[in-house]
Amino acid sequence: MKEFSLIDTYFRSVSFQRKDVLLGIGDDCAITQIPAGQALATTTDTLISGVHFLPDASPKAIAQKAIAVNLSDLAAMGAEPAWLSLSLSLPNVDEQWLQAFSDGFKELTEYYSVQLIGGDTVQGPLAITITAQGFVTADQALKRSGAKPGDFVYVTGSIGDAGLGLDILLDKVQVENPQHREYLLNRLHYPTPRVFAGTSLRRVASACIDISDGLLADIKHILNASQCGACLQLDKLPLSNALLESVDRDRAFHYALSAGDDYELLFTVSEEQKSSVDRVLACSNVPATCIGQINGAVGKVDLKLDEQSYAYSQTGFEHFSSAQPSNSAKRA
Amino acid sequence: MKEFSLIDTYFRSVSFQRKDVLLGIGDDCAITQIPAGQALATTTDTLISGVHFLPDASPKAIAQKAIAVNLSDLAAMGAEPAWLSLSLSLPNVDEQWLQAFSDGFKELTEYYSVQLIGGDTVQGPLAITITAQGFVTADQALKRSGAKPGDFVYVTGSIGDAGLGLDILLDKVQVENPQHREYLLNRLHYPTPRVFAGTSLRRVASACIDISDGLLADIKHILNASQCGACLQLDKLPLSNALLESVDRDRAFHYALSAGDDYELLFTVSEEQKSSVDRVLACSNVPATCIGQINGAVGKVDLKLDEQSYAYSQTGFEHFSSAQPSNSAKRA
Repeated sequence: MKEFSLIDTYFRSVSFQRKDVLLGIGDDCAITQIPAGQALATTTDTLISGVHFLPDASPKAIAQKAIAVNLSDLAAMGAEPAWLSLSLSLPNVDEQWLQAFSDGFKELTEYYSVQLIGGDTVQGPLAITITAQGFVTADQALKRSGAKPGDFVYVTGSIGDAGLGLDILLDKVQVENPQHREYLLNRLHYPTPRVFAGTSLRRVASACIDISDGLLADIKHILNASQCGACLQLDKLPLSNALLESVDRDRAFHYALSAGDDYELLFTVSEEQKSSVDRVLACSNVPATCIGQINGAVGKVDLKLDEQSYAYSQTGFEHFSSAQPSNSAKRA
Repeated sequence: MKEFSLIDTYFRSVSFQRKDVLLGIGDDCAITQIPAGQALATTTDTLISGVHFLPDASPKAIAQKAIAVNLSDLAAMGAEPAWLSLSLSLPNVDEQWLQAFSDGFKELTEYYSVQLIGGDTVQGPLAITITAQGFVTADQALKRSGAKPGDFVYVTGSIGDAGLGLDILLDKVQVENPQHREYLLNRLHYPTPRVFAGTSLRRVASACIDISDGLLADIKHILNASQCGACLQLDKLPLSNALLESVDRDRAFHYALSAGDDYELLFTVSEEQKSSVDRVLACSNVPATCIGQINGAVGKVDLKLDEQSYAYSQTGFEHFSSAQPSNSAKRA
């Protein structure tokens, strides 16, 4: 099968068709139209087999996670997703794999009304790079740099689930309850980008990031960009029943603080806007939990449990780090 | 070295700073502004070590080729380049390699006034994916689908050089003349995207594509999209002295027809616009040569040499094809 017919067969018709795409797949470039008054938000994320997902992961999960991690970046900016470009590196042409991958791709692009506008298909080690583009007005973009001392720290949904899901997959932890097990694995394989929550928070949040590397690692990006510190209350962390009933409390904190891959939004809100959080998030049906407060101790995170300091040193996963946390084996 | 400091060190300051980039590297997304009345052109290309370049290629050449092949797609659309996103997959952190790569990146982004606005750095096999974005008005975009019977077929610069350059590199061909050898290798390693020619041709060309896979393979994309055929005069092909003096005539035709990697523009022009070609290209200092004419034989290419039919069956390189031309060994 030739490269071009491959693209034609599996990707030309997979995605939602948008009116602002004047020219889609099949020419040297896609041509798209930005709504008047909007700026363009662009993000790129790559997933590599054996690094970001296990080599035997299902093609549907790979496709949907690759989309989700990119839409999550748009969400963290408060941007409305519009278009995707896909670079797919494949060791060989496996039609069954491609069909499942493109089916998964189609499902999520339709759900989020985003259109695949182009890309590249090359022969090489299995890897997926997606560039996602979306809209936000320049003055409403949720930057990392807007947090101020006194702001409250929130996180959407629950955190730590994907980390435990990975350890289940790697046979490091046994979870007997089949519903918990399925829930945790789904949180790892099918993260939900908080797209609607992100756009809802535009006028409310002072800073925002998505949790990909772990709560501690990602809040530090906000703290560094905003030149401030934070105090987090561990007893406030939103932890799922599946997590709490599967491991002891300290291990649950560890997953929540360091495991990453949850793709929840971590955001800060000024005291004046605090009363708006629940209201604006109601329409997106995503709960948010206040887990602490910003302070002036630049770059520092104080962890408290029941008013006491909580000693914890593990930071989130970073590529190329010589000291990788043990829960990141999949990405080592 | 951590991933984030790696990005900071090598890429945060490498590129030209544009006023339309409201937020660059360092947040969840870049935020950029499109000029009023312009549409956005987007293209993505991936280069993989051992597939698109030899594993020992210089980091400067890899960086500049990765940029060039993307800018070439924008040029083929008549778009003015603006922003790049870079996904860089590296097996390990080699500071010398990264410095040379980012130096090469900086040089070309400054030359073309494009800004690196973000991306991803991951640990994996050496691969570079770039998404390039640029501007063009929707009605002036140079599509593949606009060619009509009677239109004249043009190509910029000279073709076949990069293919011979590759065969030199692979020790398949010996070129004794050191100047020719250097010229041919430079054509392979440092292709020139015809950016200024592309924007100059906006009101003149009826269809356009860049030659990445070979003249024959790429003209077929125009013919299929435009539902027409073409007759090409081999004696009109623009062949460099370096090519003509290094191999015999038939071999030179082979490189020009099938070797690809030249990144010249292949475009069609109606009879009414024919007199404008030289005038609009004069400012870009790129010659264009009329090599044939479009006809109604849908999807067919007739090759003529001195008014006689020329028998030739080799088509350009395609990924995943079981019958790869011998000159594509680097990409097998």
